[in-house]
Amino acid sequence: MAGHIDHTTTPQSRSAVTPEQAAVEETLTAAVLRSFDSCTDPRLRTVMHSLVSHVHAFVRDVRLTEEEWNTAIGFLTEVGHITDDRRQEFILLSDVLGVSMQTVNVDNVAHGGATEATVFGPFFVEDAPRIDNGGDLAGGAAGQPCWVEGTVRDTDGAPVPNARIEVWEADEDGFYDVQYDDARVSARAHLFTDSDGAYRFWALTPTPYPIPHDGPVGRMLAATGRSPMRASHLHFMVSAPELRTLVTHIFVRGDDLLAHDTVFGVKDSLIKDFVEQPVGTPAPDGRDLADTTWSRVRFDIVLAPAGTVDAT
Amino acid sequence: MAGHIDHTTTPQSRSAVTPEQAAVEETLTAAVLRSFDSCTDPRLRTVMHSLVSHVHAFVRDVRLTEEEWNTAIGFLTEVGHITDDRRQEFILLSDVLGVSMQTVNVDNVAHGGATEATVFGPFFVEDAPRIDNGGDLAGGAAGQPCWVEGTVRDTDGAPVPNARIEVWEADEDGFYDVQYDDARVSARAHLFTDSDGAYRFWALTPTPYPIPHDGPVGRMLAATGRSPMRASHLHFMVSAPELRTLVTHIFVRGDDLLAHDTVFGVKDSLIKDFVEQPVGTPAPDGRDLADTTWSRVRFDIVLAPAGTVDAT
Repeated sequence: MAGHIDHTTTPQSRSAVTPEQAAVEETLTAAVLRSFDSCTDPRLRTVMHSLVSHVHAFVRDVRLTEEEWNTAIGFLTEVGHITDDRRQEFILLSDVLGVSMQTVNVDNVAHGGATEATVFGPFFVEDAPRIDNGGDLAGGAAGQPCWVEGTVRDTDGAPVPNARIEVWEADEDGFYDVQYDDARVSARAHLFTDSDGAYRFWALTPTPYPIPHDGPVGRMLAATGRSPMRASHLHFMVSAPELRTLVTHIFVRGDDLLAHDTVFGVKDSLIKDFVEQPVGTPAPDGRDLADTTWSRVRFDIVLAPAGTVDAT
Repeated sequence: MAGHIDHTTTPQSRSAVTPEQAAVEETLTAAVLRSFDSCTDPRLRTVMHSLVSHVHAFVRDVRLTEEEWNTAIGFLTEVGHITDDRRQEFILLSDVLGVSMQTVNVDNVAHGGATEATVFGPFFVEDAPRIDNGGDLAGGAAGQPCWVEGTVRDTDGAPVPNARIEVWEADEDGFYDVQYDDARVSARAHLFTDSDGAYRFWALTPTPYPIPHDGPVGRMLAATGRSPMRASHLHFMVSAPELRTLVTHIFVRGDDLLAHDTVFGVKDSLIKDFVEQPVGTPAPDGRDLADTTWSRVRFDIVLAPAGTVDAT
């Protein structure tokens, strides 16, 4: 229903705004802020006030045209309509604008030696299969085998036994299981650290892939000259009682895309050495890898205390 | 898929942010801005830069929590899913945050004596029935008859013959035709000014109504202690060659809701006297109104030249 006002005007420059016009605009913003006076939740009022102030400032700063407003309404409508249980285009939108990563930054201020967090992304699924320590998450997904091992400790250095580790990744064709139509469950699993806080599993060596770019967010990236590619990565979510849940990835040192990740998720501390193993190298668990190459990586995880945000 | 990170932290205060943390956040925003360096459309780059800057500032100012981010993703997803060809929840959202009205303000800077604009709203429909000058737009909708008349002129005072006038409104129960499930078309029409630039038609005396509040936007209003009520109004969209299309309403003087319109659409110049006529008062066109009261209102419209935004 949008799209019917066709004022083909050129946006004004902000400097051309007269004091009288500025007063009209400021009066409106003040009225919108006042409309939240009866909000009994002080945090909600704070958030709404800041949101309204910033969105109004955006409209005023760029002198948004009605045509552009129509385009925005149409864009958001498309984002809404392509979103379903298996595709979350609003998260993609938040990701490519760096909003997800900024929220992660704000909420995961460096805490002692705790492992850094990064974006959650749209591809986590609850109830991924459980594998044993040393098991394989591939579930039939294509890719080079990768042995992943490490420990989970708290910031005092104590091992965390029985920590829950969720891991998920794309296959070598760049797709997560949920992007296929056949309801497959692959390249995702959960496992638990052993009594020493150690974990190990077989995964796939991460490969670069584009975020889903056949929808409105992909068209926005194309229109703005941006690549949809993400740096190669393996997702982790690690949780244990009394400790802060960590949502992060590990990235592959040497990947050309590290400096151009389209969701701005890369942090130096999360770049790891995925060491390529020649054909014939014995696997750590004695698995017969026949005549294939494989890789291995170590990721030692440190969890902050629960409730931590502020820097210590 | 959202909703899985449950950090039950209290938002930080902005003042607690260390210089090191501020630098992390500023570095991210700068990286997102740089990602638009290859955008070949300078206007699009400007809009995206401003949008990113303001959204990041919002996240940083309120120290948005991941739980709140999840709530926002869930909210936008609901807004997307309730939106269809007959319901536009994104426009409602823009309306209740005053974003639509601020865009109208920015794009419709006072131009000489031109009639002021207000919000478009979500209920316009293309291809409303044509009525003759003097016809009735009710189409069976319930409400008190209202005789509406006026002229369309340009800012030099010259009458505009054959101007197209679209009019639409809610019935006395507070619903537009598109809010009923029966595909009715009522309380909307288009007509054209006569050779003197004059127009006249029968409508319904506008009555107050709530915006649709059974969806996510209605829940947001309830959570923030806001009313969903709109001041009584009749929508107009007036267009003619070489003149700027006017999207506006007229409001009813004396309506208690004038100061509390939930979409901030009221402007003093658009408040009109809807004069109640006693039973038995002869109708201007001789129509037999039997034993009902009716009202009449005059709305003289002045259209700005096409392409006008800046004040003169």
